[in-house]
Amino acid sequence: MFKKLISFDEAKQIIDELQLESVGSEVVPLGSASGRVLSSDVESPVDVPPFDRATVDGFTVRAADTYGAEEHDPVVLMLKGAVEIGEQPRCSVGKDETWRIATGAPIPDGADAVVMVENTTEKKSEVQVYRAVVKGENVMKAGSDIKKEQVVFGDRTLLNSRRVGVLAALGFAMIPVLKHPRIGLISTGAEIVKPGERLPPGKIYDINAYTLASAITESGGEAVDFGIVRDDDIEALKKVLQEALTATDVVVTSGGVSVGPKDVVPKILDSLGKPGVIIHGVAVKPGKPLAVAVVQGKPVFALPGNPTSSLLIFHLLVRPVLLWLAGRKSGKLRVTNAKLSRRVFSAKGRRTYVTVSLSKGKDGEWAALPVASGQSGAITTMAMAEGYVELPENAPFTEEGQLMRVVLFEDAERVD
Amino acid sequence: MFKKLISFDEAKQIIDELQLESVGSEVVPLGSASGRVLSSDVESPVDVPPFDRATVDGFTVRAADTYGAEEHDPVVLMLKGAVEIGEQPRCSVGKDETWRIATGAPIPDGADAVVMVENTTEKKSEVQVYRAVVKGENVMKAGSDIKKEQVVFGDRTLLNSRRVGVLAALGFAMIPVLKHPRIGLISTGAEIVKPGERLPPGKIYDINAYTLASAITESGGEAVDFGIVRDDDIEALKKVLQEALTATDVVVTSGGVSVGPKDVVPKILDSLGKPGVIIHGVAVKPGKPLAVAVVQGKPVFALPGNPTSSLLIFHLLVRPVLLWLAGRKSGKLRVTNAKLSRRVFSAKGRRTYVTVSLSKGKDGEWAALPVASGQSGAITTMAMAEGYVELPENAPFTEEGQLMRVVLFEDAERVD
Repeated sequence: MFKKLISFDEAKQIIDELQLESVGSEVVPLGSASGRVLSSDVESPVDVPPFDRATVDGFTVRAADTYGAEEHDPVVLMLKGAVEIGEQPRCSVGKDETWRIATGAPIPDGADAVVMVENTTEKKSEVQVYRAVVKGENVMKAGSDIKKEQVVFGDRTLLNSRRVGVLAALGFAMIPVLKHPRIGLISTGAEIVKPGERLPPGKIYDINAYTLASAITESGGEAVDFGIVRDDDIEALKKVLQEALTATDVVVTSGGVSVGPKDVVPKILDSLGKPGVIIHGVAVKPGKPLAVAVVQGKPVFALPGNPTSSLLIFHLLVRPVLLWLAGRKSGKLRVTNAKLSRRVFSAKGRRTYVTVSLSKGKDGEWAALPVASGQSGAITTMAMAEGYVELPENAPFTEEGQLMRVVLFEDAERVD
Repeated sequence: MFKKLISFDEAKQIIDELQLESVGSEVVPLGSASGRVLSSDVESPVDVPPFDRATVDGFTVRAADTYGAEEHDPVVLMLKGAVEIGEQPRCSVGKDETWRIATGAPIPDGADAVVMVENTTEKKSEVQVYRAVVKGENVMKAGSDIKKEQVVFGDRTLLNSRRVGVLAALGFAMIPVLKHPRIGLISTGAEIVKPGERLPPGKIYDINAYTLASAITESGGEAVDFGIVRDDDIEALKKVLQEALTATDVVVTSGGVSVGPKDVVPKILDSLGKPGVIIHGVAVKPGKPLAVAVVQGKPVFALPGNPTSSLLIFHLLVRPVLLWLAGRKSGKLRVTNAKLSRRVFSAKGRRTYVTVSLSKGKDGEWAALPVASGQSGAITTMAMAEGYVELPENAPFTEEGQLMRVVLFEDAERVD
């Protein structure tokens, strides 16, 4: 088993270079496709618009008939009727004839332009036109917006309200998207019980299954809870790890990887398949204990039991894998800048991250207040930590007032 | 019926001052509560931690027994056994005695501190302690993080992964949250058919029901589709509006409010109850036609049929109402700054908004490229519009190069 402490950057590179299989695709109703990622190119099955259509309310004409029309010398056309919106026109527009037309209605045969209603006067069965139009004026040609068979969106396009609208315009009721990557969650420890159950003496409630499930959803994944297993029950751990590996795309455990008598999760992972544990121990603070394995072609992340540490390591190492699997290669981090409210010390020889809360100072500038994630079990600390900062390496400490790049845990909308 | 064109600011103020009923609350599993808003204060039913617990691996002691311990003059204590993690300790620590203890295990009776394993040597049934500890050292007292009956989160707190973790720590399996506001969507027009159906000549596919449904979901609401109704079928329109008013919290129609022969939606709204139409026509571009009504205590927004216009007006006027109903009073806008890529003209006497796409220029600065939303039916325009800018009033145009505040249509994560 691999036990050398490796640098954070090495760990990140090993994880980035994992050869992961795609999670595959599924076809979903367009109404629920926003936020999903296309799993293939989308070609338009139709012309948009599907027919030449009027872009203004007015009168459809042969443009040539209006030539010479001026405010004080209108051209007079014969009003033959009205083009119905939403129907194939049954009329044909002859010389010096016109038909009333509304925005969006199809241009009838014979006509090639529309005179805006503002430039006309209607008198019984005649229309006076005060302004000439050119061929094609106020007409949107069939296919001028999107051509039939044109590739409208490429594979891996992230859908949003506007793109869903475009797919609706093309007539798609269902659309192929990447599946949500499924992440199996296992909480280990002899002391934890499920929220909602009675709390026996000496026990605490499971936190990580809930924090991580929410973070997984926020990263485009689907969390599957495999419950709590004692970290001293090797057979039960082996069984649940195998179940999770079979049913999901990525497995995340929390707790139970201390290097010592309780170091059972990595041992079991090694026993379940090759290559087994590929990272065991990373020079990062917080992040002790931490292991990464690949078993049966699937990545397994064994995160610390401390809730703030496990959430932080999730964001640093697991989330990029989920985003990649979810097809969101460019999944952007929410970042802001703030000044450190006090001096903070780096852990010697380890890449150090500090969780911070944000507060607007009297000078109107944002301050990053370190909230110690080191103290085991400090739950309120976790609620306060809005993001984290990375401390510069090769310096024993970072000074108060230093401007830092803060990576936020939640999307803009979720920070209130 | 109220027909005066009012200013955009007046319209916004009338909408802001609507007396809307709360959408009520529901109890949901904690695992799906992230992104939801609490519907009451949450009091802790337990102390966190629930017992005095060790914060390090080591040996639990009576602090006084370690006084005087130094690196070259250790104190020797009698090792009596190990405290089991996750269980009520059955031991009591006597004078000059110690028990092995792991992080998170409960402190047994008699003991009041923990010596870190790094500061000890274990020898058969003895432990040599090289560093004195004070009372309470490496111990987290019961309730020191969160006290029983303490209010942990106030009413209307937006839940996220970290707050869900805190609620898990308190033992909540279910949690009361505000319901998603339900928004009824009605598309009107004689020319539109549902995506997935055959497209007859002269017809186009419905876009707004899908664009708006996605935008509603992104704003914390739940869209309920009431389908397509011809805008010349008054009885059918009346029936579907009444159904939507009964089943949902807010109704949004698109198309069919042109001031003219097709001006049927506002007329029907006036017939369904008082006060009926409160805004009909707003001096905003785009946004023609536009009406707002209150019927049976519920707001109804009649938006334009043009997809980009209806999405823009949704963001400007409807979204704030949804956020308010969803309890997200502080729903922040995603905003960025960019320079206008060309001169744009304001509509005379109307507040003018211009949809823009964003592009990074050669100078590394972001440029806002106006994408004309005015051209009816330009679908690709909608896909390109990443946000909008508000043009200054009292100026006929805004110059190329002017730095503008761009409000984005999607959350950061959704802009790729």
